[in-house]
Amino acid sequence: MFGILVVAHGDLAKLLLETAKKILQEDFPNADFYSMDWDCDFNKAKIDLEKKINKMTGESGTLLILTDLFGGTPTNIAMTFYGKYNIEILTGINLPILIKALILQKSGVDVKESLSELRMKGQDAIVLVSEIIERR
Amino acid sequence: MFGILVVAHGDLAKLLLETAKKILQEDFPNADFYSMDWDCDFNKAKIDLEKKINKMTGESGTLLILTDLFGGTPTNIAMTFYGKYNIEILTGINLPILIKALILQKSGVDVKESLSELRMKGQDAIVLVSEIIERR
Repeated sequence: MFGILVVAHGDLAKLLLETAKKILQEDFPNADFYSMDWDCDFNKAKIDLEKKINKMTGESGTLLILTDLFGGTPTNIAMTFYGKYNIEILTGINLPILIKALILQKSGVDVKESLSELRMKGQDAIVLVSEIIERR
Repeated sequence: MFGILVVAHGDLAKLLLETAKKILQEDFPNADFYSMDWDCDFNKAKIDLEKKINKMTGESGTLLILTDLFGGTPTNIAMTFYGKYNIEILTGINLPILIKALILQKSGVDVKESLSELRMKGQDAIVLVSEIIERR
């Protein structure tokens, strides 16, 4: 079972994960978060995040890192570990992606084979409600 | 200038808006949030949200409502006001969409003409970092 690590600005990672878990009403022991403080020192954050990545990849094999924003510090720091650890990074996440990732995790699929599906799920979940209502 | 209202489960709406504002380092007086309590009564939430929508559409004309998840209670309640008020609803939002919406708001564009661009921006921001790194 792959691990899931949400990495984002401030308390966003924690709250996104809490929200997804509350909606699914299940516990996900292999899903965790890393909150990047606003006033964080880049090098200190890098050391802290690496500890978490090292621990989670050791326990779960592949680790799926979900981040808030391409170009943001949380994503930039996570990217420095690509190639060094067995991680995949998907950025620009929304609540539907996180929920889908948690469901995929429980289903026992190979995360590397599910990445495109996961991205598409997130993209397709961005919907203009007017188009749905007018189609009815 | 159109208004922006973020509507989501628990504290997610508040935190998403706070995070986007901190990243942009600007004040956005026409952007607000509505937090849907986990134990909310549907009808009470509907009354509270309508008050906010009524106020914001009165002040700003068109109101762009950004919600977390299609099928979730926050989106379902917001949808009940489509057609009654001058609102557009985009669901499945991520941080890049919210940042783009705030930038569009300041630029003074017509929100209805920018909706497709906004959705595309959010979809394009969902990126597999491996693909970027391997393209380099």
